[in-house]
Amino acid sequence: MNAGSSSGPIKGNAVVAQSGGPTAVINQSLVGVVEGLQGMNEIGKIYGARHGVRGMVAKDFVDLSNTPQETLDLVAGTPSAGLGSTRDKPDADYCARIFATLRDLDIRYFFYIGGNDSSDTCRIVNELSNQSGYELRCFHVPKTVDNDLMENDHTPGYASAARYVAMAFMGDNLDNASIPGVKINVVMGRHAGFLTGAAALMRGREQDGPHYVYVPERTFSLEKFVTDVDQAMSKHGRCQIAVSEGIQDEDGTAIGAKLIENAQTDAHGNVQLSGSGALGDQLASLLKEKLKPVGGKVPRVRADTLGYAQRCWPDPSPVDQQEARQAGRFAAGLAKSGDLDGSIAIVRTSNDPYKSGMKRVDLSAVAAKTRHMPDEFIAKSGNNVTDAFRDWLRPLVGPMPKVGRL
Amino acid sequence: MNAGSSSGPIKGNAVVAQSGGPTAVINQSLVGVVEGLQGMNEIGKIYGARHGVRGMVAKDFVDLSNTPQETLDLVAGTPSAGLGSTRDKPDADYCARIFATLRDLDIRYFFYIGGNDSSDTCRIVNELSNQSGYELRCFHVPKTVDNDLMENDHTPGYASAARYVAMAFMGDNLDNASIPGVKINVVMGRHAGFLTGAAALMRGREQDGPHYVYVPERTFSLEKFVTDVDQAMSKHGRCQIAVSEGIQDEDGTAIGAKLIENAQTDAHGNVQLSGSGALGDQLASLLKEKLKPVGGKVPRVRADTLGYAQRCWPDPSPVDQQEARQAGRFAAGLAKSGDLDGSIAIVRTSNDPYKSGMKRVDLSAVAAKTRHMPDEFIAKSGNNVTDAFRDWLRPLVGPMPKVGRL
Repeated sequence: MNAGSSSGPIKGNAVVAQSGGPTAVINQSLVGVVEGLQGMNEIGKIYGARHGVRGMVAKDFVDLSNTPQETLDLVAGTPSAGLGSTRDKPDADYCARIFATLRDLDIRYFFYIGGNDSSDTCRIVNELSNQSGYELRCFHVPKTVDNDLMENDHTPGYASAARYVAMAFMGDNLDNASIPGVKINVVMGRHAGFLTGAAALMRGREQDGPHYVYVPERTFSLEKFVTDVDQAMSKHGRCQIAVSEGIQDEDGTAIGAKLIENAQTDAHGNVQLSGSGALGDQLASLLKEKLKPVGGKVPRVRADTLGYAQRCWPDPSPVDQQEARQAGRFAAGLAKSGDLDGSIAIVRTSNDPYKSGMKRVDLSAVAAKTRHMPDEFIAKSGNNVTDAFRDWLRPLVGPMPKVGRL
Repeated sequence: MNAGSSSGPIKGNAVVAQSGGPTAVINQSLVGVVEGLQGMNEIGKIYGARHGVRGMVAKDFVDLSNTPQETLDLVAGTPSAGLGSTRDKPDADYCARIFATLRDLDIRYFFYIGGNDSSDTCRIVNELSNQSGYELRCFHVPKTVDNDLMENDHTPGYASAARYVAMAFMGDNLDNASIPGVKINVVMGRHAGFLTGAAALMRGREQDGPHYVYVPERTFSLEKFVTDVDQAMSKHGRCQIAVSEGIQDEDGTAIGAKLIENAQTDAHGNVQLSGSGALGDQLASLLKEKLKPVGGKVPRVRADTLGYAQRCWPDPSPVDQQEARQAGRFAAGLAKSGDLDGSIAIVRTSNDPYKSGMKRVDLSAVAAKTRHMPDEFIAKSGNNVTDAFRDWLRPLVGPMPKVGRL
């Protein structure tokens, strides 16, 4: 509804739904919303929609009104979307059907946990309610491992994925040092390099990997890539590389999309980049062909694509868990406080010691927009991240293992 | 040396080396050997060979004689081979050069931590010493994530890799339930299905994945594969699949090797199976082409190849850490006790509560041989593992996260 058009909470039911790629903490936000609403007199039923907007259209609901705290706590600690998720991106007609369900069931509060597409769905449904004079409050609770939402210092889900990526590169760097060669690891992140950058978090000494970090914010040149790797091989006798799945050429075409045959596209028209090893394999083939021989031999080249484990690994960052829960509670709190719709965003109030808080922003500030890595997080060379980025990331991921050396 | 040809420890130096693919606990075994030797009067220097047999030929050594306990403990907890590893498989000439180094440096104890190829190197070097009358004791300390060594209930390194695989499938099953479709995950294990089987450890209810587990011990038919997946799709609306990288057709040809273009082979003549997403991608392409449509649409099919994280993830199984350390100490203890060469093997003495011990076996019992999954661990259908397998695996992996459901 419009800001200022009412003076307090309205009576009615509420619905909460989850959308897009799951994360390790999306259930924390779900539980945060439910906990926050359970104590609120104005709320009748709390519906959980199965598989996001699909469940809202089909009236496929779970009643969460009286879910015991013990169950909520167990669900909160479980990765992936407990209600089920969806890749559907509702158009105007789809949104109208969502709105019809809301009216039909006297739902006055709509909480949608997801990325920038989900905030856009919130925005459209909100407009429909405004146009028809139906009192409805729409809240977007942020969620994405890509960390590409505007207004957020970082998004719930990102820190746990970053923790996974940092752990993976830490172990893999030791592996690569043990049997030297070239190792490419492809990391999620279609438009933003925040998750790929996490690869460098645990890099200790200069000889440690990842030696290069390629993010979508900088043009990726295949020629420069080969030169970079040759250089690391001659300096360190090995090379560990972090590549974002979203790396692009100078025309803005994703390198991965060019190389992947038989690709499936999703409802957003995006070519499938995750769930395929093609980008890594093609880059490995290129290096096998073009790299300078070492001791008369083609260097050993391997590629791994980190895959879905990045987003649902069952060992989340404690900070991420706490903030995701808090984001859900904060959204419920906005419902209590009265007359504002909006999207929740995380604000960092102190870096050392780390402290954060929540704020409300307008749906339009987040909807269908993409945040990119700021320039100060990317090395001038364009093939690495800066210490400023690592300092920003460090407090988010939780305790990390220590490395011993002989 | 020959059993019985001497009555006690001989004076001289010792060397320890690591070989093959790293594991999360291979440094525990290294430290176990060093700790065991440090208190032994007969031992002069304790050499650590850099990159296995390569370092032994090149005399590239680290002196481990006086490494402080604090450093040893930190190294023991660090994944991957602290001394560096190698893929070299020594032939007779190579072994002669290793032996030359041993004589030259008055090394009387040779500890080699690795898989069945490493035990074969031990065996050959041992024969050379016997032939030339040089008193030498050779010990093989087991290490492999594949769990394919004879005489072992399980091998150091396996339990930590199994922990990773079980965690990955647990999170991925929730992910797949959240956004239903077909998900293939390719798991390491060239000849043995123990690691792939770990995918099923955390399967709770009948509808949970993995719905199928394909191991190298059973013939893999592409036709049967498509039928299996169709069946799960019609029953559960989704399908999560564990596939060993080593699955073979009826002629014993690895499906992966057939499909991978531009493959590199290692010194053992093995085609590279890890470090490439080709097998998963090709199986996914096949399913996209052949699966029955669901609701008029080709089901969503994705493939991940779990990759090197399986063997060096920095969160090892506590049981694995302890046993890997113990295997190293036990080998050093054999040196103290006198006149026997051999390979160390883990024996399970009780399942509930779990207890294990170590035994010595002849090098020839392990060298260059491969252990496969016993029949009682594989379902009669040939596309899954049994509860007997899961009961056998459960005590090895350490505490696992709990799952909450709405």
